[in-house]
Amino acid sequence: MTPADLALANRLADAAGAAIRPLFRGDAGADAERKADASFVTEADRAAEAAMRALIEAERAEDGIIGEEYGTRNESAGRQWVLDPIDGTTSFIAGRPIFGTLIALMQDGWPVLGVIDQPIAGERWVGRVGEGTTFNGVPVRARTCRELSDAVLATTSPHCFAGDEVDAFMGVAKTVAERKIIYGGDCYNYGLLALGHVDVVIEAGLKLHDYAALAPVVEGAGGTMSDWQGNPLDADSDGSVIALGDPARLEGVLEAMG
Amino acid sequence: MTPADLALANRLADAAGAAIRPLFRGDAGADAERKADASFVTEADRAAEAAMRALIEAERAEDGIIGEEYGTRNESAGRQWVLDPIDGTTSFIAGRPIFGTLIALMQDGWPVLGVIDQPIAGERWVGRVGEGTTFNGVPVRARTCRELSDAVLATTSPHCFAGDEVDAFMGVAKTVAERKIIYGGDCYNYGLLALGHVDVVIEAGLKLHDYAALAPVVEGAGGTMSDWQGNPLDADSDGSVIALGDPARLEGVLEAMG
Repeated sequence: MTPADLALANRLADAAGAAIRPLFRGDAGADAERKADASFVTEADRAAEAAMRALIEAERAEDGIIGEEYGTRNESAGRQWVLDPIDGTTSFIAGRPIFGTLIALMQDGWPVLGVIDQPIAGERWVGRVGEGTTFNGVPVRARTCRELSDAVLATTSPHCFAGDEVDAFMGVAKTVAERKIIYGGDCYNYGLLALGHVDVVIEAGLKLHDYAALAPVVEGAGGTMSDWQGNPLDADSDGSVIALGDPARLEGVLEAMG
Repeated sequence: MTPADLALANRLADAAGAAIRPLFRGDAGADAERKADASFVTEADRAAEAAMRALIEAERAEDGIIGEEYGTRNESAGRQWVLDPIDGTTSFIAGRPIFGTLIALMQDGWPVLGVIDQPIAGERWVGRVGEGTTFNGVPVRARTCRELSDAVLATTSPHCFAGDEVDAFMGVAKTVAERKIIYGGDCYNYGLLALGHVDVVIEAGLKLHDYAALAPVVEGAGGTMSDWQGNPLDADSDGSVIALGDPARLEGVLEAMG
């Protein structure tokens, strides 16, 4: 990863935000189309990903792209840009400024740069392996969490969990104070973890474009991300995710999940 | 309700926001104290309510106050200011800008003026009986929802529901598309409903200070609020709430709740 990669990532986020902002609180809800996986896609998702792909194709013709809406390009390239134009389309449709554009650069299957951009609030997290995480340009750190019972726990929706996953999540939910659980938020929760306001995020069913950008942000802030077995995330992960601001709480979370 | 009441309500919201903003994303999580009802209170809740009470006491000594944190004053007055300095304390603690300050003016037990103020994003909804609802000064309307299956449904947390309430909520949740349900948000969801981006909000366990300000905002935008039996909300309601952007969907929601 070079300074030019970082500069391009920032320009990708700028381009996505410019495509999204005019459509926020427009008729997105009415225009939303349901995809095969039951999620929704809007004009804003498409416009933002198209804007980012155009930049990459013009300037980095040799790089690969893995995009949520428009698929893969140069699949065998060692460098891959992983794009989720709007993570949290439901929040976007509902007019909540807590969705985000996700951009990751993967080198040889490993994310080395991650961006979470919230274009309405003007909030941008950038995580780089070996360089730490910044929020709007300022270095940030996740916080220490001495007891899991004091943690702020976040997850997007109880509907993300199926079968035994419900019990596993509830095992952790019962360990923390009920009124310190926040629902909704998608990628935004991982940004709040990197700022030291959320301690634990637990999700399942994520895809590579959902989690690739999150790991550099969380880990660059001193936190850790793994799957529900405690293994590091890579391109073949099963989509179960635990993010912790304080890595020392991993064992406790895995135990609470049963 | 006079123009002076509206001016005072705006000044109360200004004062609360001025107290809250410096404490947002500070050490609120660490300082949060658990109350008897298992909810949390922070320095920001206390400072914001104190600032509002000071204004009312100085300028409207004869009016009553019903405040979440500091209780009642002049209980028998015909005019009562109902104050919730931070509705969505968990979101506030977690650093999410989707909590709100709630201010209602009740006359003879009926809310005639309601304010939802989001001091970080600079968003203010004002609803007045007979005058409609404004968002940052501009009149707004909830939207038509022809089919419940197309609705965006919001609720703060599945933990708000106990026993049969879970089944009632899930009855509605199953009627809408799973990916059009948003969790989290507290009062902010009612503001989004008044803007025409959310169609249905269903909650339970609300207190007077939670819902008194919401009804004028929702109803002034053309929506409707009721309890889970379809009855209008008043000071003696049981805390179950249905808010609809399109009042024509009430029967369908009540049926889905079983």
